[in-house]
Amino acid sequence: MGVHMYIYEIELKVRDYECDIQGVVNNSVYQNYLEHTRHEFLEKNNISFAELHKKGIDAMVSSIEIAYKTPLKPGDNFISKLYVAKEGVRYIFHQAIYRKSDNKLAIKAKVNAVVVINGKLATALPEFDDLVARSEVKTV
Amino acid sequence: MGVHMYIYEIELKVRDYECDIQGVVNNSVYQNYLEHTRHEFLEKNNISFAELHKKGIDAMVSSIEIAYKTPLKPGDNFISKLYVAKEGVRYIFHQAIYRKSDNKLAIKAKVNAVVVINGKLATALPEFDDLVARSEVKTV
Amino acid sequence: MGVHMYIYEIELKVRDYECDIQGVVNNSVYQNYLEHTRHEFLEKNNISFAELHKKGIDAMVSSIEIAYKTPLKPGDNFISKLYVAKEGVRYIFHQAIYRKSDNKLAIKAKVNAVVVINGKLATALPEFDDLVARSEVKTV
Amino acid sequence: MGVHMYIYEIELKVRDYECDIQGVVNNSVYQNYLEHTRHEFLEKNNISFAELHKKGIDAMVSSIEIAYKTPLKPGDNFISKLYVAKEGVRYIFHQAIYRKSDNKLAIKAKVNAVVVINGKLATALPEFDDLVARSEVKTV
Repeated sequence: MGVHMYIYEIELKVRDYECDIQGVVNNSVYQNYLEHTRHEFLEKNNISFAELHKKGIDAMVSSIEIAYKTPLKPGDNFISKLYVAKEGVRYIFHQAIYRKSDNKLAIKAKVNAVVVINGKLATALPEFDDLVARSEVKTV
Repeated sequence: MGVHMYIYEIELKVRDYECDIQGVVNNSVYQNYLEHTRHEFLEKNNISFAELHKKGIDAMVSSIEIAYKTPLKPGDNFISKLYVAKEGVRYIFHQAIYRKSDNKLAIKAKVNAVVVINGKLATALPEFDDLVARSEVKTV
Repeated sequence: MGVHMYIYEIELKVRDYECDIQGVVNNSVYQNYLEHTRHEFLEKNNISFAELHKKGIDAMVSSIEIAYKTPLKPGDNFISKLYVAKEGVRYIFHQAIYRKSDNKLAIKAKVNAVVVINGKLATALPEFDDLVARSEVKTV
Repeated sequence: MGVHMYIYEIELKVRDYECDIQGVVNNSVYQNYLEHTRHEFLEKNNISFAELHKKGIDAMVSSIEIAYKTPLKPGDNFISKLYVAKEGVRYIFHQAIYRKSDNKLAIKAKVNAVVVINGKLATALPEFDDLVARSEVKTV
C-alpha cells in the first residue's frame, strides 16, 4: 500500500442547475464531477475513455464510496483531486473535492474500477499500472 | 395541415432531484420528459430508438420550441401527450404536458425531427408516416 | 442488528437519456433512482422531504456505498427496494435495485443519513424511528 | 431591432456523462449549457441569479427555441456566446454555441425571459435594460 499522493487536480465550478431545492449541489452530481475528473485525468495521460471503449476495453466502476462533508453551493469553485492505487484486480481511484475559497473538504471518495476486455475481467491494464506507479511516493 | 389529435399520452411524476433552487422543475428537464415520451411512444409502436440506431437510422431533433406555462413542482403528477405531423422532410412532434391535479398546461412544445440514414438525410421513414396518418382526424 | 426485511419497493423504467455512450445507465443516475425511491417511500409514509425542509429539518446523506453488479440498459424495467436501520445517530437506508425481467441484482447500496434540525445534528427523528421499527423482523 | 453583437462568451468542454447512446451530447444538455452561460454572464455583471431569487425577483424563461446544427461529442471544447435584446416585456437572450476546433455552429438559441417580482410580471429590470443597451451596436 505505502504512501500515496494526488497526481492530478482540476478546477471546476458549481453550475446552478446542479443544485436542488435544498440549495446545494445534489448528491448524485458529485459522481458526475468524480467521473469527469477521472476522464480528464485519463485524457491528459493520453488514455481516451471513448477510444478504449471502441477497442473493446471498458474500465467499469464496480463500487463506489462517497463521504459527504461540506455541501457545495451555487457559484462555488472547487478543486477535484485524485490518485490511483491497486488492490488485486481492482484499480482504486482515491478522489477528493475541496472548496476553493477555504480549502474545506467537500467530499471524499473511493472508486473501485475493474478492467473488462471484450466482456472478460482483465487482471491489469498496463496504462493503468503506470498511473498507480506514479501515485506512489518513493521513500528511502 | 388539417385537424390533429393527440394519439399518445403517458403519466409521469416529478422527481425531487429534477427540481432546482427555485423549487420547480428545471427548464432543461422538460426536454428529458419530452424525449422520454417520444421514445415510449415509439416503443409502444414497436419502433425502438436503440434498435433504429443499430441499423444506421437516427431520428435527429433538428429544432425545438418550448413554451413554459406553469412550473411543475416536487411531487406533481403530469400527463405528457403527443401527436405527429409532417412538413416537407420534417416530422413534427407536437407535445404538451399537463399537470394532473387540475389539468393545467405546464408546457407546450414543437419538436422537429429529421431522419438520417447512414449519415444522409432521408425524405421519409414509413414507420413514421404511419404515425402521422394516425394523428390526422378524418372529417367528412 | 437483527434481521431486516425490505418494507418498500417501487417499479421504475430506464429512460434513454439516462444512458451514456457505453449504452448503459450512467453510474451517477443510480443515485437519482435511490434518492427518488427514498423520497417516494417517505411520501407514502406521509413524510414529505420538501415539507421537512420548510420546517428546518433536513435528512442529509452523510455517506453512500454503491456496489454495481449488472448494468441496466435502455428500456429495462427495475424494482427498487429499501429498508431502514439505525446505528448511533445515523439512519441507514439499505437499498437494492433488481432488473425486473430476470430479478438480477443491478446495484446494492447503503445510504447513511443524519438528521439536521436548524443546522444542528439531531440524535433522532420519531418519524424515522418508526420506519426502522417496521424494518425489523420479529423473531420468537 | 437594429444591429446587435455578442457581448459575452465562455469556453466550456463536453463531459462524457453528458453524452447519450448516440455518442453525442444529449439535446437537453444544451439547455444546461445555455442556462449556465446566462448565469455566468449575469454573475460577471454582478447580477446573481440566487441573490435575485432571495429578493423575490425571478427571471423566468417563458419560451425557448433551439436549432440543432452540429452535434458536439465527448471531449469537444466549445464557445458559448450571447447578447440580449428586448421586445415588449420580454428580454431575449440570443445564444449560440460554436465548436472550438473549427468554429462550426453547434446550436443557435433564442431564450425569452420575463421578470417576475413577488409573483407579478414586471415590465422591466434596470439591470437587464443595461445589458440590452450594451448589446446594441451604435451606427452612425
